[in-house]
Amino acid sequence: MRQTVIFYLSFLLGLALSLASLVCVCVWSARWRGGFAWDGSALQFNWHPVLMVAGLVVLYGNGAVLYRVPLTWGQNKLPWKLLHAALMLLALVLSVVGLCAVFGFHNAKGTPNLYSLHSWIGITATALFAMQWVAGLAVFLLPWSPTSLRKLLKPVHVWLGGSILSLSIAACISGINEKLFFVLKGSTEAQTYAALPPEALLANSLGALIVAFGLVVFLILSNQKWQRPDSRPEELAYTPLLQEENE
Amino acid sequence: MRQTVIFYLSFLLGLALSLASLVCVCVWSARWRGGFAWDGSALQFNWHPVLMVAGLVVLYGNGAVLYRVPLTWGQNKLPWKLLHAALMLLALVLSVVGLCAVFGFHNAKGTPNLYSLHSWIGITATALFAMQWVAGLAVFLLPWSPTSLRKLLKPVHVWLGGSILSLSIAACISGINEKLFFVLKGSTEAQTYAALPPEALLANSLGALIVAFGLVVFLILSNQKWQRPDSRPEELAYTPLLQEENE
Repeated sequence: MRQTVIFYLSFLLGLALSLASLVCVCVWSARWRGGFAWDGSALQFNWHPVLMVAGLVVLYGNGAVLYRVPLTWGQNKLPWKLLHAALMLLALVLSVVGLCAVFGFHNAKGTPNLYSLHSWIGITATALFAMQWVAGLAVFLLPWSPTSLRKLLKPVHVWLGGSILSLSIAACISGINEKLFFVLKGSTEAQTYAALPPEALLANSLGALIVAFGLVVFLILSNQKWQRPDSRPEELAYTPLLQEENE
Repeated sequence: MRQTVIFYLSFLLGLALSLASLVCVCVWSARWRGGFAWDGSALQFNWHPVLMVAGLVVLYGNGAVLYRVPLTWGQNKLPWKLLHAALMLLALVLSVVGLCAVFGFHNAKGTPNLYSLHSWIGITATALFAMQWVAGLAVFLLPWSPTSLRKLLKPVHVWLGGSILSLSIAACISGINEKLFFVLKGSTEAQTYAALPPEALLANSLGALIVAFGLVVFLILSNQKWQRPDSRPEELAYTPLLQEENE
């Protein structure tokens, strides 16, 4: 009972931090960076932070802890698997559109793509995420994969899932940091990043919120008592859809 | 047997990646950034990346997986606990000296400290590390802490340990990225970061090596079969030094 209460407090804290991150990144792009467009201008770039935070952090992190919600444990796992896959697919689509936003902006300006360390880490996170999604579908959702393969790959799926979130957080931190150095050069000293004007405080806080959300997700994932009690080998075997639905 | 072989391959890969990261960061500071001094100049700053990578990544990450080395399992745990604590203390000292290097450089130039998101994440990682070390000493090494406290705090110690490594990697990535934008402005286009000159390739590769090392550490930590078989409650109880030595 006590564990359940602590879980829900952590889960709600994660949701609150996700919501706060989303609000922060939207306010930053909309209010401080001039809003949104899809015309190759800096307003197109503004979709990039919003979509990456929404996809690769908020949806991804919440999708990762879905199975840990005790409310779902007494129920058939299949709908939750489908919801996990659907949330992750939506996260992946948002991330890819977020990458298109920045590629289009660079191409319109004649700036090279994928030279900074931020971009190397971000593109690696998204590519690993796409591979992880396809492998997850093939191994854990589609009926033909054998139990032995599911058992073998589940720890890899969990490890790679956490690793992608770490990469994604590193990409967010380096991206926010880089953007603030770009835009807060300032005509007066008070407008530079070093003077911590309101925009810098807002975007630094966005970074802190993203990190705090990541730590809550890792806390939830690391607690074995909060795992869905289905690590029993028979649970990893494929059960035909109708049978699962009638369980 | 197969698990042991895979563990040692992962452990050796981690060691190789640590060594490669250390070589890269030393070559970057020594060859491309002009070497080292402690005089408030940019040469003092050059200690910062070297000491943070050596302390908060290489020593920290290797110290974190020490208990997983199967060779140590048949032996008394106390010397390994002392080695874990000593490695982590050395890592902490190097990190603090690495922070002093950059504070001194900023102060000499009249640049404010702790304004960038990189610095917020880095100082948080180091502060949490210091707290973790003191709490680890008090709870897991000194004799007076009760078994119940050790059992309660062990998962927190493990979770916070992984979280600090994640923060440290995010700080490294954002720091390398920021430094390259600072120094590779270039008098010609070919010397800018966007043109990926040799220095940018070297430092980006350093970031990639640090991330790869982090992923190997998380892989080792996430595999329950590689845990030292001492999660038994009696192992968490304090055993007097002499008794431990004679076991």
